[in-house]
This record gives sequence, structure tokens and C-alpha cells, in this order.
Amino acid sequence: MALSKSPYRGTRDFFPKDMRGRNYIFKKMSEASERFAYEPYDGPMLEEVDLYRAKSGDELINDQIYSFTDRGEREVAIRPEMTPTVARMVAQVHRELPKPIRWFSIPNLMRYEKPQRGRLREFWQYNADIFGAGQEGEVEILQLAVELMKSFGATGDHFEILVNDRRFVDFVFEGLIGLEPGPTKKLYKLVDAKNKMPPEKFAAEVRSLTEDEGKAKTFEAFVNLASMADVRRFVDAVFADVSVSDLHHFKSSAPVAVSSHVTPLFKIFEKIEAAGIGDYVRFDPSIVRGLDYYTGLVFEIFDKHPENRRAIAGGGAYANLLQIFDEAALEGVGMGLGEVPLTDFLVTHNLLPDFSKPELDYLVAAFNPEGEATAAEIATKLRRQGLKVEHYLGSAKPKKIFNYSDRKNIKYLVFVTETELKLRDMATRTETTVTLQELTEGKR
Amino acid sequence: MALSKSPYRGTRDFFPKDMRGRNYIFKKMSEASERFAYEPYDGPMLEEVDLYRAKSGDELINDQIYSFTDRGEREVAIRPEMTPTVARMVAQVHRELPKPIRWFSIPNLMRYEKPQRGRLREFWQYNADIFGAGQEGEVEILQLAVELMKSFGATGDHFEILVNDRRFVDFVFEGLIGLEPGPTKKLYKLVDAKNKMPPEKFAAEVRSLTEDEGKAKTFEAFVNLASMADVRRFVDAVFADVSVSDLHHFKSSAPVAVSSHVTPLFKIFEKIEAAGIGDYVRFDPSIVRGLDYYTGLVFEIFDKHPENRRAIAGGGAYANLLQIFDEAALEGVGMGLGEVPLTDFLVTHNLLPDFSKPELDYLVAAFNPEGEATAAEIATKLRRQGLKVEHYLGSAKPKKIFNYSDRKNIKYLVFVTETELKLRDMATRTETTVTLQELTEGKR
Repeated sequence: MALSKSPYRGTRDFFPKDMRGRNYIFKKMSEASERFAYEPYDGPMLEEVDLYRAKSGDELINDQIYSFTDRGEREVAIRPEMTPTVARMVAQVHRELPKPIRWFSIPNLMRYEKPQRGRLREFWQYNADIFGAGQEGEVEILQLAVELMKSFGATGDHFEILVNDRRFVDFVFEGLIGLEPGPTKKLYKLVDAKNKMPPEKFAAEVRSLTEDEGKAKTFEAFVNLASMADVRRFVDAVFADVSVSDLHHFKSSAPVAVSSHVTPLFKIFEKIEAAGIGDYVRFDPSIVRGLDYYTGLVFEIFDKHPENRRAIAGGGAYANLLQIFDEAALEGVGMGLGEVPLTDFLVTHNLLPDFSKPELDYLVAAFNPEGEATAAEIATKLRRQGLKVEHYLGSAKPKKIFNYSDRKNIKYLVFVTETELKLRDMATRTETTVTLQELTEGKR
Repeated sequence: MALSKSPYRGTRDFFPKDMRGRNYIFKKMSEASERFAYEPYDGPMLEEVDLYRAKSGDELINDQIYSFTDRGEREVAIRPEMTPTVARMVAQVHRELPKPIRWFSIPNLMRYEKPQRGRLREFWQYNADIFGAGQEGEVEILQLAVELMKSFGATGDHFEILVNDRRFVDFVFEGLIGLEPGPTKKLYKLVDAKNKMPPEKFAAEVRSLTEDEGKAKTFEAFVNLASMADVRRFVDAVFADVSVSDLHHFKSSAPVAVSSHVTPLFKIFEKIEAAGIGDYVRFDPSIVRGLDYYTGLVFEIFDKHPENRRAIAGGGAYANLLQIFDEAALEGVGMGLGEVPLTDFLVTHNLLPDFSKPELDYLVAAFNPEGEATAAEIATKLRRQGLKVEHYLGSAKPKKIFNYSDRKNIKYLVFVTETELKLRDMATRTETTVTLQELTEGKR
């Protein structure tokens, strides 16, 4: 039986047209990052499994990770995400580096998924993180996210950033509803699933988590908050309604709870407005980012197209990532953006250029064997000027060369005939006779 | 116990200074490839193990490959080289594509090695291949190799390309010495090891493979060929000396053996001279590239530095790579160049720029909180011009900002003071007072 020509399930072959598209996307990511002074980094494709276990517990390890035991009996995994690696790397150097630390990366990652639209087993993910910058860093990451999206030609008609704050969520779930961490996790999951179930089912699910009708109503009021004005009214109503002792999970008093758990959300929206990106950002209580390590801002970039209503990217602020390395706390803010959902977004909105043909400055061809050496010489000299030059190997009849040149985006075609050199401008379809010197010394 | 901060054995963390170096090297590789009209491609990080088994047999699989069984019981491996992947991809599309097909890639690969100088478990490898171009393709790949090396500032003082031809080697080993494929493989290994053993040991090893003193002497004459002039004399002497019936492994006559097995080597050197790269290329009988799939030209790029006398890259021509997919033969020529030995080479010859500091166009900072909003606005506006701008978050005293700016290569520093905007040219160390408009609309 012949060997399969297909790539491994859930992975892709990037033929040149695909690779030009990928390079275009990665270049935009790098350029946007560099405009914000983010520095490039990368880590290994394999990490020891303990790193992921320390960060995410056993759940991710068991379900999605590509892990195996190496020949030296080390348990290793192909990286399923970049955050543990960046935390490990920052832990090595953060004491010597001036703050803030701004880093970005575009690693290839693997997860054992059932392949489907927007989800593959191997994919690349843009990661940007800022460490040691507090809430200013939260705003900067959002600005970077907006500028990155805009650099692809996307506008506020195409995407929006949905924002929430884990401190505010904790204030509602733990402070107001008064749940222990275990049931709180279930509320998180319920928020995530809200838009996928009918209201009655949602109401029933809420009541299966708390028998207190007042708390159930508080939770429902929370998930229906549609704007920062709603949040303001909700918070005011809460404090008109509850006494300090009701906030039983906050050891401190209500004012302290407000300043530590509610104020940051209002502050971030003030800063978002001041930074001029208010039109792209909206409060959304359903953005909670289930992962344990977020401790402040959480956000997702959403496609606004009704037929592709999905998250393209997500991120947030975290205070304790270095803890697993016994390092002092260093607050960070990060975002991750996968090229698969980004590409779906760009295709949906027709924002990707055509990459089907390669771009060349020159195709140099000889019509007969006597001209081959001259063609080779011209190609070499044009390349020395930094130009992209295809040397048509050997020689061929004009028609064959013309047909061949149709498969590529070529600016100029150079023919070596028996008697002369002809330069054809492929855009204007005009031909001129040139000398070798004119051609190779840029003297036209 | 705290979690380890080190990367997995034999892999590297690329901190920004390392990553800038890697990006520099990859950019040179891409640019040189594009000047020769090679198109970018990539394949998956994982392939099914059968692909490697079909190409290399069980040897590579057992010793060096990172293989494991996935959750769906598929036997997969992290790619240890790119050639099987490019063959698989070309097998999918070669019937529709105009020839020649010119492709390049810079994949990350993994091999289970004992880490040492020039050899790591994870590394990146530049790969360039041309399919369907015959011997013209062999010369073009060598030209590309020379231009790539030169693009780093390397000259013929730093490197040389050692060339041989597998057809010529087979002519000597099978035709003249008359060994079967098994012992021939041992001769290949002996050639590889020649420079690592004293002459007497080498002579003894040769004689352990053949009892015929004439054949042993032929082999010794072969391994001592130092130039194409030597090869000419060797071939002439052979045909003066042997009768046609001595070439018993060639079913054909001596003239045919010459045209199919000896002429190509002379032809390639003619073409190398005509292409103007003769100064970089030298015949070397010890370059045999043990891998089975080479069938024509074989070459290695060598560092000429006496303290780093090692191969940086290797490659050759192959006729039968698509066979394992039941596809018609498509001749190809390829090269692989690892970034680890290349970096050692560039460091040895002091050819790498300093990447220790990030390059920025502007650092924008406020001296006091009142100036922060203005600083943010300036940063945003400068970025819209495509400039690389670091926004100094918050505000700080001049001295602190100056110290901070020393850690980066910054062209201009913008201060927002209580009363004015100051622009400091970091190269000339001069300061001027500017207006917001002058600064952000490029009207200086």
C-alpha cells in the first residue's frame, strides 16, 4: 500500500500560497507588537509536563495535551499554550530586567482536539504580555489588540472587545451570592454556557446551585448587565440593599470591597476612553475566562459578523503566575490570539489579500541555448541589487515562456534573443530593447 | 520543591536578544531564497512514523526520533528532518505545478541527541529544494548556498563548499572495486571516518573489506583525490588500466559507464565555473552523504576556521523521493542548513551584529502625572506613522527616565514637562523644544 500523502489529522500542510498568507499575518503581528515596543521571544516546542500540571492542574494534562515519556524517562509535552513557558522564562530574568517587561511570541502549539471550524490540533498563537505595569498595562494590551486588528484593515464594524473584571465577578459570586470556591466555579461555567441554553433552563440551573431566591436573582441581574451604566446602577442598588455583614466573604468592610473589587472595573473603562479605544470596547458579564490564573481584567475579541459570532482572542491580568517558581509576585497582563480563528475572521470580512501567485521582480529567460549564459549572468547581477529574480533554466520558445509567466506575478520579463535583450513591462504590456549594462546597473 | 525554571534538556529559551538574532538569521534565509524565486512552505510539527520509516528505514526511527502513540492509537513523531515532509507535499501537487518547483522552509525539528557543541535536541533548519530541473538545479542550489552565506558577510576566506557526485562514488566503489551494496555501505562509512584515524589504521580497515590489493589501492587513490585535475588523472589512469570486463557491476560498456557515472561530475564543475562560484567550491572525495536517497551531486558547506572545522550545511540531488508515494520519479536537489552550526560559524568569524538591546524610534515619557495624557497621545500618534514607540507608563523624574533609556537603543526621547515638549536626539545628544503638531505630524 502506498504511503499516505495527507498530513496528520488536525494539522495542515502550508503550500506556498498558504505560507504567504501565514507570513502576512505573522508580519502584521510582529509589526504591531514592535510599534508598541514589545520584544520577541520564543521557548522550546517541548516542556516538562510538571510545568502544565503546576499551572492548570490535571484537567488540561489529561484531556488535550500531547504528552509522552522521553528516552530518559522524563515526562514531556508539546506546548499546548505559551503562558507557562513565558512565566518560566520571566521567572529566570525578571529580577534583572527594567519594568515593565513587554514580550510577544508566535509559537506553534498542539492540542488533542476533535478538528472543527476554528479549531485544529496544530495551530499558531500570537501571545503578548506585559509584566510589572499595573492597570496601565491592561489598557496598553487592549490598545495593542485594537491596533493589531486595525492593521489588517478591520474596523469597529467588524470586531469588538468584550471586557469584564475578575475582581468584580468575585465580588458578585463570592461577596454577594456568598458561594464557596467550588460552587463559584460552577457559576463560572454557567455564565459561559448562558447563551447556549433557553432562559428557563438557565433559571433552573441557577436555582440548582443556590436555594436562596434573592441570590438567584442577584446572579440573574449580574448576567443581564449590558453596559457600564447598568453596572453602576447594579452596584448602587446592591449597596442600597445589603448591609456590610451581608458581604460575608469579604473580611473587610463594604467600602474596601468596593475599592478593591468594583472600582478597578470603572477605572479601566475610564482609561479605555482616555486611550481613544472606547468605540471598540464593551462591558460583557459573560466574559469570565474560566482559567484559574486571571485576577483582574478579562477580555475577548469577538467577530461581529452574525455568521461568525465567535471569539478570536482572549486575555487578561494575572498576579500570581510566578508563584509556582517560588518567585515574588509580578503582575502581568496578556493576550492570546490564534491564527485559525483570526484567519476565519479575515476571510469572513474579505480582508485577506490574494496570495495565490508568488511576487517576482524579474523572470529572465533565453529563447535558445546560445542565450543561456547571458540569461544566467543577468539573473545573478539583478539579484545583487536585492531583486527577486527567477532564472528560467535552460531555454524555450517565447510562447512557452509567456504561458509560464502567467502563473506568477512578475513585474518584468527579460528575454535573451539571438540578437538582443528585450525587457517587457508586465503591467503596461510594453517591450523595449535594452543593453546588458542598462539592465543590470539600473541605468534605465 | 519549586518548579524548574530551565528549559527541557537540549532545547533553548529564546530571550529577546536571542530571538532578535534568530529573526535576523531567518530573515537573511528568506531574503536569499526569494531573490532566487524560492517559495515558502511549511508542514506539520508531527508526522506519522510510517513516513520516516519508508524513507530511512528503522535506524533513524529507533535512535533519534521523538515518537509516541497518540490518543487515537496513531504512531506519530516530531519531525527530525524536513525532507520526508517536503516529499509528501510535493507528491500531492507536482502534477499540477509548472516545473521547476522551488521551495524553502525554516522548520523547527527535534532529535533525541546528546547535547553538545553544534548539536541540540531542538533546532531550526533552513531547507531549500528544487524539483524537475536536472543538473541546472544542482548548480542553482549551490549558487543559492553561496549567496546565502555571503548575505551574512561571509567570504571565501570563511567557508568553502565541498562537492562530490554519488554516481562517481558508485562508479569507483561498485564498478572499479566491485563491491556489493552491503560492503559498499561500509566503504561509505570508512570514507566518512577517514580523517578521524591514522593512515595505518585506515589502510588496515580498507584491507579488512577487500583482500584484493589492487582494489585496496584503487580505494586509497580515490580518497586521496584533492582536485578535479586529480579526478581527471585518476579516470584516465583507470581506463588505461582496466578492460571493459573489469567494470563488472555496470552491465553496459565502459563509455556508457563514463557518460552516466563520471561525466556528470565534470559537467557540474564546468557549470559551477560558468556560474561564477568556482572560487567557493572544491572537489572532496570524502563528501559522500551516507543517506540512501542521494543519487547525484552531494555537497557540504564547511567552515574554514581551523578551530571550527565543521560542516554547516549539506545537500544533494535525489531522483526517487516520490517513489514511496507510488508517484512517478521527479528529480530534485536540496540543501539543509541548521541554525546551530550556522550561528557557531557566524560567531567564530564575528559576523553577527549586536542584538543585546531593542531598537526603538521613540521613548515618550512624562515628568509628572499632569503630562501623562499628553505622553499617551503622542505615543499613539507616532505609532500611526508606523514608528516603534515605547510609552513610558505613568511618569517619573528625568534621571530615572534617562537611566531607563540607557537599556535600549532609542533614536529619540520625548519628554512631556509641565510647560513644554522636549525632543532629545539620542545620537547627537541635543535637545529641542517642539510642539505637539511638529512632533506628531512629522513637521520637524
